[in-house]
Amino acid sequence: MTSRFTATDELCVQTIRTLAMDAVQTASCGHPGAPMGLATIAEILWSRFLRFDPADPDWPDRDRFVLSCGHASMLLYALLHLAGFSVSLADIRSFRQWQSKTPGHPEFGLTPGVESTTGPLGQGLGNAVGMALAERLLAARFNDEVRPVVNHRTWVLASDGDMMEGVASEASSLAGHLGLDRLCVIYDANRITIDGSISLAFSEDVAGRYRAYGWHVQAIDGHDPDQIEDALAAAVAETDRPSLILARTHIAYGAPHKQDSAAAHGAPLGEDEVRATKKAFGWDPDASFVVPEEAVRPLRAQAARGAEARRAWNERMQALEAADADRGARFRQACAGTLPDGWENSLPVFPADARGMATRAASGRVIAALAPEIELLIGGSADLAVSNKTDIPGGGSVAAGCYEGRILHFGVREHGMGAILSGLALHRGFVPFGATFLIFSDYMRPAIRLAALSGLGVIYVFTHDSIGLGEDGPTHQPVEHLASLRAMPGLHVIRPADANETVEAWRAALQRRDGPTALALTRQKVPVLDRSHLAGAEGLAQGAYVLAESSGPRPRIILMASGSEVSLALEAREELEAGGLPTRVVSFPCWELFAAQPPSYRNEVLPPDVPARLVIEAGASMGWDRWIGPHGSCIALDRFGASAPGPVLMDRLGFTPDHVVARARELAGRAGG
Amino acid sequence: MTSRFTATDELCVQTIRTLAMDAVQTASCGHPGAPMGLATIAEILWSRFLRFDPADPDWPDRDRFVLSCGHASMLLYALLHLAGFSVSLADIRSFRQWQSKTPGHPEFGLTPGVESTTGPLGQGLGNAVGMALAERLLAARFNDEVRPVVNHRTWVLASDGDMMEGVASEASSLAGHLGLDRLCVIYDANRITIDGSISLAFSEDVAGRYRAYGWHVQAIDGHDPDQIEDALAAAVAETDRPSLILARTHIAYGAPHKQDSAAAHGAPLGEDEVRATKKAFGWDPDASFVVPEEAVRPLRAQAARGAEARRAWNERMQALEAADADRGARFRQACAGTLPDGWENSLPVFPADARGMATRAASGRVIAALAPEIELLIGGSADLAVSNKTDIPGGGSVAAGCYEGRILHFGVREHGMGAILSGLALHRGFVPFGATFLIFSDYMRPAIRLAALSGLGVIYVFTHDSIGLGEDGPTHQPVEHLASLRAMPGLHVIRPADANETVEAWRAALQRRDGPTALALTRQKVPVLDRSHLAGAEGLAQGAYVLAESSGPRPRIILMASGSEVSLALEAREELEAGGLPTRVVSFPCWELFAAQPPSYRNEVLPPDVPARLVIEAGASMGWDRWIGPHGSCIALDRFGASAPGPVLMDRLGFTPDHVVARARELAGRAGG
Repeated sequence: MTSRFTATDELCVQTIRTLAMDAVQTASCGHPGAPMGLATIAEILWSRFLRFDPADPDWPDRDRFVLSCGHASMLLYALLHLAGFSVSLADIRSFRQWQSKTPGHPEFGLTPGVESTTGPLGQGLGNAVGMALAERLLAARFNDEVRPVVNHRTWVLASDGDMMEGVASEASSLAGHLGLDRLCVIYDANRITIDGSISLAFSEDVAGRYRAYGWHVQAIDGHDPDQIEDALAAAVAETDRPSLILARTHIAYGAPHKQDSAAAHGAPLGEDEVRATKKAFGWDPDASFVVPEEAVRPLRAQAARGAEARRAWNERMQALEAADADRGARFRQACAGTLPDGWENSLPVFPADARGMATRAASGRVIAALAPEIELLIGGSADLAVSNKTDIPGGGSVAAGCYEGRILHFGVREHGMGAILSGLALHRGFVPFGATFLIFSDYMRPAIRLAALSGLGVIYVFTHDSIGLGEDGPTHQPVEHLASLRAMPGLHVIRPADANETVEAWRAALQRRDGPTALALTRQKVPVLDRSHLAGAEGLAQGAYVLAESSGPRPRIILMASGSEVSLALEAREELEAGGLPTRVVSFPCWELFAAQPPSYRNEVLPPDVPARLVIEAGASMGWDRWIGPHGSCIALDRFGASAPGPVLMDRLGFTPDHVVARARELAGRAGG
Repeated sequence: MTSRFTATDELCVQTIRTLAMDAVQTASCGHPGAPMGLATIAEILWSRFLRFDPADPDWPDRDRFVLSCGHASMLLYALLHLAGFSVSLADIRSFRQWQSKTPGHPEFGLTPGVESTTGPLGQGLGNAVGMALAERLLAARFNDEVRPVVNHRTWVLASDGDMMEGVASEASSLAGHLGLDRLCVIYDANRITIDGSISLAFSEDVAGRYRAYGWHVQAIDGHDPDQIEDALAAAVAETDRPSLILARTHIAYGAPHKQDSAAAHGAPLGEDEVRATKKAFGWDPDASFVVPEEAVRPLRAQAARGAEARRAWNERMQALEAADADRGARFRQACAGTLPDGWENSLPVFPADARGMATRAASGRVIAALAPEIELLIGGSADLAVSNKTDIPGGGSVAAGCYEGRILHFGVREHGMGAILSGLALHRGFVPFGATFLIFSDYMRPAIRLAALSGLGVIYVFTHDSIGLGEDGPTHQPVEHLASLRAMPGLHVIRPADANETVEAWRAALQRRDGPTALALTRQKVPVLDRSHLAGAEGLAQGAYVLAESSGPRPRIILMASGSEVSLALEAREELEAGGLPTRVVSFPCWELFAAQPPSYRNEVLPPDVPARLVIEAGASMGWDRWIGPHGSCIALDRFGASAPGPVLMDRLGFTPDHVVARARELAGRAGG
């Protein structure tokens, strides 16, 4: 550790504060208060503890830094600039402008050095738990005693708001349970929120709460450099538990009139106050975006130490590769996030079976088949593993101090699971999946959205995907969930029709490493379709495909369905064809994949000259109009479900061959021809 | 308090257990373990503490009982039967069957005595916080010293899963902050979850966590009657803080082979084990659904005490009405949930103003205008009151021991807010509203869904409803949220175009007392439309209406828009009309209201013979096909937003008059005519 806090450190701190003030003032919007209040803590962390090398922001063994309070983005941009990352003063001057590198909230993938897209509170902390877990899991797999190649920490700055969000509670509870000692959360207790003093809504004992989670907890004055440095060092020294440093700070520290005021949270300080603050710092009040040469030294010195550490790491990697080429190659592959050659060879093929298999069960078989081939594949369930069929046979459970396993037990914490899965993906090293009932995707929706926005290859296994689940009733039966997930940009939603489509769904999800995929799977058995007289399940890759062609030269009607309703469509087709109505059945498991096909393919599957199209899906009809066209219709579910056996519900709510046949005949009749 | 636990009590407990076993066994599905483990606690609570009168399940001063672990529904149905509510043995025999009164999870409104629809974990506990808050708020308003008419408690049974959910953390933290001493949560710590021992995922010190929230905490053996009774009495005696009773229990208590096993959580015990358990109880193993005459005594005796309490309460009410007729009438109205006559007279009218007003600001003005007229109207924001414009002027903040106020400070706890709002509505007495940014509706989605399923008249104020919010960027810009909320059954989503439509949106939301409404409001200013040459805003009640008619005898194109895009449509119309294209503008604030209109009205607004229809909405296009028909098109946003000033984003992403005009001309050209 270097010497104690110096005048140069203080200059760096003031530079962070003035950059934040100036950028927010220039943008006429933003959050100056938190960067100013956190500047001392951040400077000490980034100059003495955080391990990074701006020359390689993706260096696998770097420390991870997560700004969970993403609204303090100018703090991060200032740090990145001062540390020598590719964030220029010009970038900072264009804070919050169209196509700048410095958006209102940090965006992963856009700005080098930004580890996580944050802003929606609580999510960053959850991501960080995932990152710290990934580090332990990788260390358990790839380190040996002489050449540790995974040996880094995850640091988080979190705000009062983060502490109030349930997702942070869930993730923190699990982090304590798993004993993630490489995680340190610095809680910026400035006691000011948008609505004013935090005492309006928040009076809990956060330190006590984190102790109850099993964390190592310290409380400090967040403006006292020695206390900060000592607390960070103590967090590093702690080897059994995650650390929380509760740092009492003053929002907009140093602003003569706005320190400790809610006004400094989410609005520019105003020209006068900016000038007054600079004066108080002994700075030229007329100069903006000033970075004294001296001010960059502390973080550049740490960057130099980081470069040295990276060099040493490279040597360890080479030594590892020399000693154990296989392990070295596997680790490189883990870091790159690529899948091993030939992984698809292990995918199972299911023989036709009219008695059927639930697609959740098929998914479980796929996981079991893939697990030996793809060691990066890890995951688990929010306490529904038995129902979701997500356990990796022989995978072993991950637990505190026991990180060799592959099975994650998230507890009844769907939202925390979502944020942690994203953290695992952000860290790199794994293909993470997580599971719950489709209905409870609602609990984790903010995390799914951030995964989609960040382009993370997370796989969500959502089982019990319709009223077909039966007796648990409307509180557990998804209705609008397929529609509401399909509405989300960047997310692929796949609802396979049978066991073999489930294989293809997993293939598509695994191939997609730059965005998340949600699998919607049945609780109940569905026939494993006899592909000898139907199209192959590989058609799933196109999103929709002709599963059963009509007998005539041209179909008079197209039945389109997804998931469990596909076999119903096939049943109805038998009867319609027997009655002389040429009927095509299209299996339609994924809108996003189909929308990405060329128009020629789409017109092949859904010929414009076949206007009679009937959708059958046990979910909300919303959005299907796009595919059925002007003369189509839906057998869907635009109401809540009910508690009764699944087959009874399907019958009462219109999902019967008779109803499909009747509606299809009506539709074909209306369409004429 | 009656004498200590007797043989009759034990018989009652065993009856609860056997009814639960038998019902689950007969249904071939369900959760026997929790009812069996909780039976002793429930029996003591329901025979000695809970105040109820089956003759009037809606008696306003009854205690509220919430089964947050809704999967233990058979416990509740057994209790309701034994207490004399309208739940018969025949109802229990048809547990989980189509149209029975005993669905898989308790449903509010379906079964007398069920106070809340539960099952999705954590929600019931959040509802209970809202109920306990409602009690305190009503007591502060309507009680006098001699005639307290509001004086009851809220009791909750919660499970390990409830404790793990973030929504419960949020609500519990706020309950502690607000000092809701009439709330008692009994935590069924059976340490078994679906995946097995809770030690897989949950090792926190729950008692310590609740102490940190400021709760009164006791830990007991949940099978020791004396400890149970003493703890409940101590909770009653506590007058400053909510109470948590951590009860260590055994799942499936009494089952010789399945006690303490995960197998007993969510599946029938099996015929053999049911018989063995009955044998162990000294019961006839061959008899099912047996209710010994003696067994009903404890709860019926408590029901008789409840009836007596209700009689005394009626007398107090009459005395109150005699002494203070106005207060009495207002309290009756609060209990009935009806709005005072003439409340609509106070709604403001906004003069035309081209410079404009944000619809969030108009909403704030509506709240201010309504507050004096509707004393039942209470609400607040999840720490965004300044941005959401939800503060009631002069309303006063609700705080611990200070329940006269009307402004609720939820903190950064959107999900907790959602569950608490539902609890306020379930309790009756208030018209609750809650606010956050539209993007964060995702955080509270499970609570919104339960409000929709339960038919609760909650109002959600969602501001910052599009990319128009500007620089905060894609983490804060809703895109798919209108679509995903519209997909939810039972929820009304209203996105008003200007200040006067905002008035009408509030009118519609307030008139709708049997279901929730979400208002989507702008951050940015939008013109207050000049209604002297446009249709009146009252058209909002129909969901969509012709705002500006085309010049010609028949429009060649219809521009349809909601919210901030309506004024854009009007601008485009000017230019299109000037160019000779007869253009109608339809303001389309609410799909659900429009869908409820007769076809004749819908065809008037959207004549089938005008195929050229262009939607303009700064959100996902999903679902609009339903309204634009086969030849329509959308200017929408099927991607994430970006960080930049709002006007820049609108410009870059296609929301400009020029773009609308060009697309409209193209569309009208294609449609011919």
